Amino acid sequence: MESPAQKFQPRTDPLVIEVDLPEPSLADNTADADRLVRSLAAVVETDELAIDLHLVRRLPDLLRKSDYRVKALVFADGNGFRVLHAAPAGQEKKICGLAVDLGTTRVVLRLVDLAGAETLAETGLDNPQLEVGPDVLTRIHHAAEPEGLAHLNCLIMEGLNRAIAGICADAGIASDQVHLMAVAGNTVMTHLFLGLDPRWIIREPYIPVINRPGLTRASDLGLNLAPGAMVYPFPNVGSYFGGDLLAGIIYAGLDDLDEPAILVDVGTNAEVVLGNSEWMVACAGAAGPALEGGVTRMGMMAGPGVIDKVRIDPQSRRIEVRTIGNRPPVGICGSGLIDLAAQLFVAGMIDIRGKFRPEACGRLLTVEQGLARLTVVPAAESGTGRDLTISQADLDSLIRSKAAMYTILETITATVAMDLNRLERFYVAGTFGSFIDPRSAITIGMLPDLPLDSYHALGNSSLGGATLALLSRAVPGTVTRIRDRITYLELNVNQDFMNRFSAAKFIPHTDLSRFPSVKAALEGQPERNRPGITS
Amino acid sequence: MESPAQKFQPRTDPLVIEVDLPEPSLADNTADADRLVRSLAAVVETDELAIDLHLVRRLPDLLRKSDYRVKALVFADGNGFRVLHAAPAGQEKKICGLAVDLGTTRVVLRLVDLAGAETLAETGLDNPQLEVGPDVLTRIHHAAEPEGLAHLNCLIMEGLNRAIAGICADAGIASDQVHLMAVAGNTVMTHLFLGLDPRWIIREPYIPVINRPGLTRASDLGLNLAPGAMVYPFPNVGSYFGGDLLAGIIYAGLDDLDEPAILVDVGTNAEVVLGNSEWMVACAGAAGPALEGGVTRMGMMAGPGVIDKVRIDPQSRRIEVRTIGNRPPVGICGSGLIDLAAQLFVAGMIDIRGKFRPEACGRLLTVEQGLARLTVVPAAESGTGRDLTISQADLDSLIRSKAAMYTILETITATVAMDLNRLERFYVAGTFGSFIDPRSAITIGMLPDLPLDSYHALGNSSLGGATLALLSRAVPGTVTRIRDRITYLELNVNQDFMNRFSAAKFIPHTDLSRFPSVKAALEGQPERNRPGITS
Repeated sequence: MESPAQKFQPRTDPLVIEVDLPEPSLADNTADADRLVRSLAAVVETDELAIDLHLVRRLPDLLRKSDYRVKALVFADGNGFRVLHAAPAGQEKKICGLAVDLGTTRVVLRLVDLAGAETLAETGLDNPQLEVGPDVLTRIHHAAEPEGLAHLNCLIMEGLNRAIAGICADAGIASDQVHLMAVAGNTVMTHLFLGLDPRWIIREPYIPVINRPGLTRASDLGLNLAPGAMVYPFPNVGSYFGGDLLAGIIYAGLDDLDEPAILVDVGTNAEVVLGNSEWMVACAGAAGPALEGGVTRMGMMAGPGVIDKVRIDPQSRRIEVRTIGNRPPVGICGSGLIDLAAQLFVAGMIDIRGKFRPEACGRLLTVEQGLARLTVVPAAESGTGRDLTISQADLDSLIRSKAAMYTILETITATVAMDLNRLERFYVAGTFGSFIDPRSAITIGMLPDLPLDSYHALGNSSLGGATLALLSRAVPGTVTRIRDRITYLELNVNQDFMNRFSAAKFIPHTDLSRFPSVKAALEGQPERNRPGITS
Repeated sequence: MESPAQKFQPRTDPLVIEVDLPEPSLADNTADADRLVRSLAAVVETDELAIDLHLVRRLPDLLRKSDYRVKALVFADGNGFRVLHAAPAGQEKKICGLAVDLGTTRVVLRLVDLAGAETLAETGLDNPQLEVGPDVLTRIHHAAEPEGLAHLNCLIMEGLNRAIAGICADAGIASDQVHLMAVAGNTVMTHLFLGLDPRWIIREPYIPVINRPGLTRASDLGLNLAPGAMVYPFPNVGSYFGGDLLAGIIYAGLDDLDEPAILVDVGTNAEVVLGNSEWMVACAGAAGPALEGGVTRMGMMAGPGVIDKVRIDPQSRRIEVRTIGNRPPVGICGSGLIDLAAQLFVAGMIDIRGKFRPEACGRLLTVEQGLARLTVVPAAESGTGRDLTISQADLDSLIRSKAAMYTILETITATVAMDLNRLERFYVAGTFGSFIDPRSAITIGMLPDLPLDSYHALGNSSLGGATLALLSRAVPGTVTRIRDRITYLELNVNQDFMNRFSAAKFIPHTDLSRFPSVKAALEGQPERNRPGITS
C-alpha cells in the first residue's frame, strides 16, 4: 500500500512568511505592530490578525535592526490569524514546530523546520500515563480521584517535556526555537493533555468538556517551548471521535476527493469515516481487542520478532512465518493474525465459521483444558523457547472483530445508500494499516473485496495530519470545516445491525458473491481445502 | 454645563449575560464549553466566541452544580467575543470590572458591578511615574535608559495594584472578583502601561509600537486581578491621539450624532475632534501650558482654595473671587484664569491685546523687575499670606494659548468647510471642561460665540468612556470603527495657520463680528471700559 508522502513537500501557504515592510514616513506613520500586521494580513488575506504582547515588545528593535525585512510565523486562530513569532528575514536560526501524535499507548513527536517544511527529528515515547492504566477507561476513573487529573496531566507534560528536550538536542536546536505545537489525540487524551476532567465522556449522554479548544499557550500547559509558543490541539467531533481522526482525514485528503472514499482506523474501537469534498459521515464501534493483538496468548503489538506475515502451503499445510526484523518469532500482531486466519482458511484448516478442522490440522492441533490450540511455531523455532499457539477462543474473537469491522463498514455505506464494493479508495490508518495485507483481510471478509490498489496505508496519519497543520496555513480552517460538517452516526446495535453482524461472522461472509476474488481463490484450491464452500 | 450621566444607566447589551443552557441529552451531546459558547453566541450574535482554558477547566462542575443556569462575562475581542468568566446564575458574588483613566499626572479608577451597571467605588492616585518626571517627554527619555522602561512600567503597575487593593477593600469585594479592566490613556501612557518602548513616538516620523493592542491578560502585565482577568487598553489613533480621546468620543456620543459636533480636550496639548456618525476629523496642537495652570506664579491645578471664578464690578473694578471649597484663596486654575481675563477685559482693565491698562488698574498694578503685575487677592485675604498676582507675562501666555485654541478650532472646521459658529454641540472634556465658564471663554475669544447651552462639560470623559466599555458589549467594536474612521490632520503651522493665529491673538478677535454676544456685552459697558473697541 502506498503512503501520501508528497503531502510533506513544501506547501504554497507556509506558516513562516517573509515580508518587506514599507519603512515609516510622515505619510505612513502606522505603528510598528500595525505595520507588520498590515503586511502579513495582505499575504494571508485576513481582516483579523492578532499579535501577542511578548512579540510587540520586541518589535521596535527588531524592525529597525532588520531594516524592516522580517520573517513571521502566523497561525490561523478562529476566524483570523495570530502572529506567534518574528525574526530578521536573514536570520539563520530555524523557526520550528512540533507535531505530536498523542496516543493512549504511544506518543510520537516530529520536529519540523517550519520555513523549509523539513523534518528535523522524530522521537517516540510510551505514554507515561500507562503507569496509571493501559486504557482510557482506567485513566478516566483515576482522573476522578483526588489529584488524579493533575497527576495524569503532570505525567504527560513531564513526558512531553523530556521528549522535547531530547528531540531538540537531537536536531541541535534550542527548545525556545519551537514556537508552535500541533497535537492530535483522541478525545480523552486531549482532555488529559489540557487538564480537563474527562469523567462525563463515558457517562450517558457522553459529554466532553470541550470539542474545539482553540490555540492555547504552551506555558499555560507547562510545556517548555519558546516564550509565547502556542499549542494547537486538534478539535474533537465528540466523545468517541477525536482529533486524531480529524488529523487522519486531512492527512488522507478525504476532503479533497470528488469520489467518496473510506478511512478506517482500527484499534479496540474501529473508527470509520466515509465521504468526500462534499459530505462526510463517521462512526465508531467496538471491534474487539483481537485486532490490536491484545487478547490471544501470543498476541502483541508490532515489534521485533513479532509475526507480521504467514504463509501456509496449500498442499503440505506447512506454516511459514515472517517476523519483524527477521528475529526468532515471539508473538503475533493483529495484521499477522489476519494473515494467519486467511491462510488457515485457504488451506482448509479452519472452516467458514472459523473453527479448526482437526482432520486438516493434524498434529499441530492439541486440546488444553478443553480448548483447541494450534501450534503456529514450535518451541524449537520460537524466540521464547515455548510453542507459539493460537486457540479456538482466539479465532472466535478474531471472527467477532472482523465481523464487527465489516458490519460497521456495511452499515455506514448503507446509511448513504452506497455499495461498499464500489468504493474507489480505502485508507487504512495506523501501524495496523501499515502491516496489514489487504488480500488477507479480504479473504477473511474483514474488508470489502475491492481491487488491491484501492487500499492505501496511511501510516501514522495522526502524526501526519498534525505535521500538515505546521506546513499549511489553511489546515486549521479546513479541520474546523470538516469537523462541523461530519455527520456522526451513533451505531445503535439494532436488529438490522445484528442481522448484518451474524452474516459477517462467516469467512468471508454468508454471501460469497460479495467476495468474488475469494471465491476465485478458493476455486483454485484442492477440493479438500474447501469444506462447505459451494462454488 | 450638563454632563451625560444617563450614559451609565443599565444598558441593553450588558457584558454579563444570564443563560439557561439546554441540558445534555443523547440527541444533544455537545461538549460543555461548546454548549455554553453556543448559547452565548446566540445572545451576542457572533460566529466567533472564544473561551479561556482556565474557565473551561471549571466548566464541568460549574454547569452541573448550577443546573445549567449560568451567568457569563463576555467581551468583544477582535471580530468576535471572548468568555472571561462564568458563575452560577444565582450566585450573589458580584462580577466586577475596573475603568481606569491613565493620566500622565493623575490616575483614576472606578470599580463597577458589571451586571448591575453600578459604580461601587472610585479612587485616584498621582501617577507614580511623576517621580521620574512630570511630563511625557521626560518619561520617554527615562524609558530609553537601561532598565528605564521596566522601572516606569513597574511604577505604574505597583501604583495600580495598590489602588486596586484599596478600591476593592473600600467596596468590600475581593480583587479576584475583578475580571476585566478597561484602560484609557494617551499613547505614551498606554505604551508605558504595556511595557512598550515609547522612544520612536517623539522622533520623526513619530511611530508608536502599537495602535491596537487588543485584549491582554492582566497577569501578563503583573496586575493582581482575578485569574484569567483581561485588560482592554483603548487603541490609539496615533502618536498624538491616544485612547483617552477615543474614550472621550464614545463618552460624548459623537459617533451617534447626525449634526457634526466638536469635542475638545484641553491640556498642554489641545486635542480636538469634529464629526458625527458619518465622519470624524481630529487634530492636536500645542495650546501652551497656560490653560493647565502650569505657568503663572499663582497657577495651579484645581483643588481646595483654588480660584475657579472671578467677578469684577464694571463700575468699582473691585475683584471678587470664588474658590473651590470656599477656602482662603491660594492660587488660580486654568478656568479661573480665563474668568479673570474675561472680567479684566470687560472691566476695561486689559485692552484687546491683553495688555494691562494702568489707568484702569490703578493701585492694583505694580511693576516688579520690569514686569507689570496685578494683585488679584491681597496678602491679607489670601490663604498663603502673600499677594496673589498675575503678571503681564501670564496674560501674554494666556492670550497665546487661547489664540492657539481658537485657531485650531477654526482650522479644523475650515478643513471640512464648516462655519465654527454654526456648531450645535460643543463638548469640553476634563477637569478644565467642568470648571470653565463658557461665557468667559467666549469673551476672551478662546471658544466660538455659540449659544451657551451648546456647551457641554464632559467631566472625566476618559474614565467615562472606559466605564462604558464595561457596560456595553458594543463599545470595543464601536471604538475600533471610530478609530479606523478618524482622519487625523497634522496641524502644519503654515502661513494660513499663522494668519489665523495672529488674528486670534486679540480679545476676543480682530473680527469682532464673529463674537456678537461679546460685542453686545461690551456695548452694555461704560464707554471708558471699551478702549479701542468700535461698536
